[in-house]
Amino acid sequence: MIRVSIAGAAGYTGGELLRLLDAHPDAEVVAVSSDRGAGRPVEELHPQLRLRAPLAYLSHRELYETECDLVCFATPNGTAMHAAPGLLAQGRRVIDLAADFRLADAAVWEAHYQMPHACPELLGDAVYGLPEWNRARLRAARLVANPGCYPTATVLGLLPLVEAGWAEPARLVANAVSGVSGAGRAPSAGMMFGEMAENFRPYGIHRHRHVPEIEQTLSAVAGSPQTVTFTPHVAPMARGILATLYAWVEGRSAEELQELYRRRYAEEPFVETLDAGGLPQTKDVRGSNQCRIAVHTAPGRPAIVLSAIDNLVKGAAGQAVQNMNLMFGLPETRGLAQAPLAA
Amino acid sequence: MIRVSIAGAAGYTGGELLRLLDAHPDAEVVAVSSDRGAGRPVEELHPQLRLRAPLAYLSHRELYETECDLVCFATPNGTAMHAAPGLLAQGRRVIDLAADFRLADAAVWEAHYQMPHACPELLGDAVYGLPEWNRARLRAARLVANPGCYPTATVLGLLPLVEAGWAEPARLVANAVSGVSGAGRAPSAGMMFGEMAENFRPYGIHRHRHVPEIEQTLSAVAGSPQTVTFTPHVAPMARGILATLYAWVEGRSAEELQELYRRRYAEEPFVETLDAGGLPQTKDVRGSNQCRIAVHTAPGRPAIVLSAIDNLVKGAAGQAVQNMNLMFGLPETRGLAQAPLAA
Amino acid sequence: MIRVSIAGAAGYTGGELLRLLDAHPDAEVVAVSSDRGAGRPVEELHPQLRLRAPLAYLSHRELYETECDLVCFATPNGTAMHAAPGLLAQGRRVIDLAADFRLADAAVWEAHYQMPHACPELLGDAVYGLPEWNRARLRAARLVANPGCYPTATVLGLLPLVEAGWAEPARLVANAVSGVSGAGRAPSAGMMFGEMAENFRPYGIHRHRHVPEIEQTLSAVAGSPQTVTFTPHVAPMARGILATLYAWVEGRSAEELQELYRRRYAEEPFVETLDAGGLPQTKDVRGSNQCRIAVHTAPGRPAIVLSAIDNLVKGAAGQAVQNMNLMFGLPETRGLAQAPLAA
Amino acid sequence: MIRVSIAGAAGYTGGELLRLLDAHPDAEVVAVSSDRGAGRPVEELHPQLRLRAPLAYLSHRELYETECDLVCFATPNGTAMHAAPGLLAQGRRVIDLAADFRLADAAVWEAHYQMPHACPELLGDAVYGLPEWNRARLRAARLVANPGCYPTATVLGLLPLVEAGWAEPARLVANAVSGVSGAGRAPSAGMMFGEMAENFRPYGIHRHRHVPEIEQTLSAVAGSPQTVTFTPHVAPMARGILATLYAWVEGRSAEELQELYRRRYAEEPFVETLDAGGLPQTKDVRGSNQCRIAVHTAPGRPAIVLSAIDNLVKGAAGQAVQNMNLMFGLPETRGLAQAPLAA
Repeated sequence: MIRVSIAGAAGYTGGELLRLLDAHPDAEVVAVSSDRGAGRPVEELHPQLRLRAPLAYLSHRELYETECDLVCFATPNGTAMHAAPGLLAQGRRVIDLAADFRLADAAVWEAHYQMPHACPELLGDAVYGLPEWNRARLRAARLVANPGCYPTATVLGLLPLVEAGWAEPARLVANAVSGVSGAGRAPSAGMMFGEMAENFRPYGIHRHRHVPEIEQTLSAVAGSPQTVTFTPHVAPMARGILATLYAWVEGRSAEELQELYRRRYAEEPFVETLDAGGLPQTKDVRGSNQCRIAVHTAPGRPAIVLSAIDNLVKGAAGQAVQNMNLMFGLPETRGLAQAPLAA
Repeated sequence: MIRVSIAGAAGYTGGELLRLLDAHPDAEVVAVSSDRGAGRPVEELHPQLRLRAPLAYLSHRELYETECDLVCFATPNGTAMHAAPGLLAQGRRVIDLAADFRLADAAVWEAHYQMPHACPELLGDAVYGLPEWNRARLRAARLVANPGCYPTATVLGLLPLVEAGWAEPARLVANAVSGVSGAGRAPSAGMMFGEMAENFRPYGIHRHRHVPEIEQTLSAVAGSPQTVTFTPHVAPMARGILATLYAWVEGRSAEELQELYRRRYAEEPFVETLDAGGLPQTKDVRGSNQCRIAVHTAPGRPAIVLSAIDNLVKGAAGQAVQNMNLMFGLPETRGLAQAPLAA
Repeated sequence: MIRVSIAGAAGYTGGELLRLLDAHPDAEVVAVSSDRGAGRPVEELHPQLRLRAPLAYLSHRELYETECDLVCFATPNGTAMHAAPGLLAQGRRVIDLAADFRLADAAVWEAHYQMPHACPELLGDAVYGLPEWNRARLRAARLVANPGCYPTATVLGLLPLVEAGWAEPARLVANAVSGVSGAGRAPSAGMMFGEMAENFRPYGIHRHRHVPEIEQTLSAVAGSPQTVTFTPHVAPMARGILATLYAWVEGRSAEELQELYRRRYAEEPFVETLDAGGLPQTKDVRGSNQCRIAVHTAPGRPAIVLSAIDNLVKGAAGQAVQNMNLMFGLPETRGLAQAPLAA
Repeated sequence: MIRVSIAGAAGYTGGELLRLLDAHPDAEVVAVSSDRGAGRPVEELHPQLRLRAPLAYLSHRELYETECDLVCFATPNGTAMHAAPGLLAQGRRVIDLAADFRLADAAVWEAHYQMPHACPELLGDAVYGLPEWNRARLRAARLVANPGCYPTATVLGLLPLVEAGWAEPARLVANAVSGVSGAGRAPSAGMMFGEMAENFRPYGIHRHRHVPEIEQTLSAVAGSPQTVTFTPHVAPMARGILATLYAWVEGRSAEELQELYRRRYAEEPFVETLDAGGLPQTKDVRGSNQCRIAVHTAPGRPAIVLSAIDNLVKGAAGQAVQNMNLMFGLPETRGLAQAPLAA
């Protein structure tokens, strides 16, 4: 039984970790913490949950002192980096679902996250938690940087093309749409129901923090710089991401592309290449750890890759569980078999 | 008083024409028709409407025989082309809100709409009803092809760049998102509430009928071929279109782009260029004839133009009223002053 | 031209007042104030609005010192009562869209609103702003208490029955459902999109502040105490109220009830009795000042009255404009002709 | 391993049965049928599903001929009654999720469902599938009438009061709200996204088919006639029912009521009595088989009971699995442990 602590378990990502780990046959949640909820039972902040064993929120400090095998951070950016060195030194493993360990270059991180990094010396040890790219390293990892939701959908969508070196590297476009839960659970004027109902809007044009993460990963995949123009939008729904990806792939037929994707993901338990002409939609992966991908092209036109995930599952908590399974030698799919709740 | 007949007034576009024309100080609706609603009062199919004078649906044939100055077609594609020659011969004017007269080349039209064109000889007389591009010709038009909803948002968004010759012509990308009303009001499995709630999905990849319309207009604007990769999506909302447009504009600064757009639309009553950094959202134009545009760029990145309209108003019925105002010598904004219903 | 100041114009109700008054032919908005928005242009907080003449928010104090004929308060409860005495003494008229002047008994008010009342001596002068009940007094009013949204829907729905003395007075039930905008625009955890999407929930059981307001009005109508069990709920939509009202009306046929309602509201411009069997829905009144009512019964069953309004229009800003029209001798419907935006 | 066939597995209820049974450790789905889908793989009509073993739809006739232990009917009303006698004669068991066997009196059934009943002689053998009331009989049942969604929420909400004889029998009111999936998956004009988005509406006033079912069950519980005034509404969400129930309970305190409910449901795995003051909401049971109930009262007012379920799970497919577990001697909760998907 893996004993897991979840720091920051009052938000959406923490709630999903609780949902998944409470039903996981080989893990148990031994402690949860929350800044705003300390002292309160989990059911007050997540009224839908009825855990196998009731839990109350600790302070982060109390949680760090609780015996466990793994600490998952579902906290805001800039939290895990203060605690990770100590936890690792005690022999625990750490998965940060926030951004603290996602960028290899501390200077780039500090420029995008607008704060000094607390442990730049650990950045080299952190393993980027995208199993479809990094599986071998994840099995041995002690510190995992769980990918961002947009990077997960975008990188999985472009990975086969970029690995094959088929895509023009300076012209990649990622037009992505997320449900509102991607913005977190803290009250904000722009995410009130009255503002987002019947609304669709872009944000963060040319300056979203996920750009360096996406470009870092795809550049590493390619072994050469890749420029990805990334535009996030928010749609009036709670969950889901659809990334519509554009890549110029001179001289490649639709059949070649289809075959490239089919082969690349044939053995992946959580990535499905749809048949030619397929159209992934967010509701078909809602609540599940699946990523669904389809690739389209036409003569004289770029390839269009469509990539759909649940931002809270494959884009956050589900991928963290997948990484935990790898880190602890369990079958990768353990505890992640939930069918989507489509309607 | 302009006497207007509306053929096909049982759907969303016809309902919007009724909403706008019933409040128009210089127009009156004298007849409405509907295949499925013939004989029934308008209020049965549009229960929200209480017209100045009650109307019942006629058959299309009866409507064509009713005295009037203008016939607006809010019918399915392939309807107006059968009636327009006769109506024009009687001296009436015609605005087709469907696609019958949007493409100049009958062969292209037939390939995309999968039926023979009934009056290809009229295609040369039809004026494309985008006032911001075609105002002078619209004042003299007898037959207007009202633009599609996606082409309106896309062309208005790219027009300044393409006119200026700043955009790389083979690499234009239009990633567009529409509310569900764009699919019409006829019951269909995919547009049921249970299928579209909490869902976001792409469709018509590389083969939507609006592609030749967009490319025809932008190529005419440029005087040379423009290739636009257009990807439509549907979001869980009833109204609104946001087009996110990508154009490579080597060597143009954000300031130059901002100034280009500001000038181009400075005198336009229904197109607003937002200040630098602006983010149009669909709710801010809901129910109004406004198009809101913002342009963004960054070094080494393409320009991103954001263009938001209400698909049923500026994308259909409102633009038809704007065209009617031009055709009949009225101030262009007459009857189109409704403020958006944002919340 | 009536010069109107709007105190508290940053929220939903204030935004609706701006939408309606900016298009009103006989009124002009001369000042707006906001606690959180002072100094900022209206378009920052209501990006959908483009006023005839631009306005920036003042502080409340500055607004009170601005020359005008009428001050409308779209502020939180407990604001207008501090300023109204001074404004009235200066000869201005006041409409409070909050609750400060709705209850005749200061002790009851203080018990429900949990603060001392600042000017109990004015409670007797305030006229309850429900024109369908109080039209004559409103024409002469200097201080109007604009009704709550739920009381508007509920009282209009029960008024004919209670006036006629047909309903059992101790057994009235009002089961009401509101869109989220009824909770205001200030950020709150429970009204975030992620919490209210795909959710339906009750609140305020047996203790909502609208109960004494509803019972006070209906008791005054009847001339004897009426007990109304009122249960509010919130549905995942921005606007709209539907009240489903239950009244035991021994021995009255469906035809008698239909005729009672038809007659009572025959001359009312903003209340429509639907034909027998009618089913009002919120979308059919969205954005308009209409109330739609239907009455149903069956042998051995209570009467069920259905009453639908837009909570921000007939339930707030539209009704305030209707009251303003009465107070200033204008036709009651002036500036209130907007057709609903159903889709 | 229980071999289950599902007749009518193309709709929402059938899809939920597939979701639950495909993950059930002691059941396997051996055949599915559909009128409109015969010959097509399940994944075409339920694209979110990836079954353990792929299945294609049979015709109903082919399904009846397939060897199995249990046939579940998720078909329209009037289907199961034609096949059940033959299936039972072959020794199979039957659960009808439609209404064919819900009413004991064939004449009443025929009046409400507007068709002759095909096997009135079986009505006496059918067991009403509400385990919280009927558990003992269900263990021995061969033919189960799975309750309607509204009756499940309503009866569970009123059961303790009616059993105790505390509620005035002629004055029960059930004001209920459902998500759109309750209307099924077949395309219909009124359930299109464009019609139901931002809309709330009542229907079936004083004549819904669930009235005789609710009254039959509660009258049986009480041993005397109970009159329930039932008003259904549809809210803009896919799933969920909230029933707001009114009962006059002279002289009973809030504490007595709370204790009555707490005790009645203390041992029930799928019914939870919330603490005093509790407010069930539909999202907290979404996707799960839970029913959440709260009871409120105040001096001089009726008791208000709030009862929330997922209409497709506890209101349909989940309850069918619960009944199957009872019929086949399995633990009642087997395969029904999914946590709700709240956000």
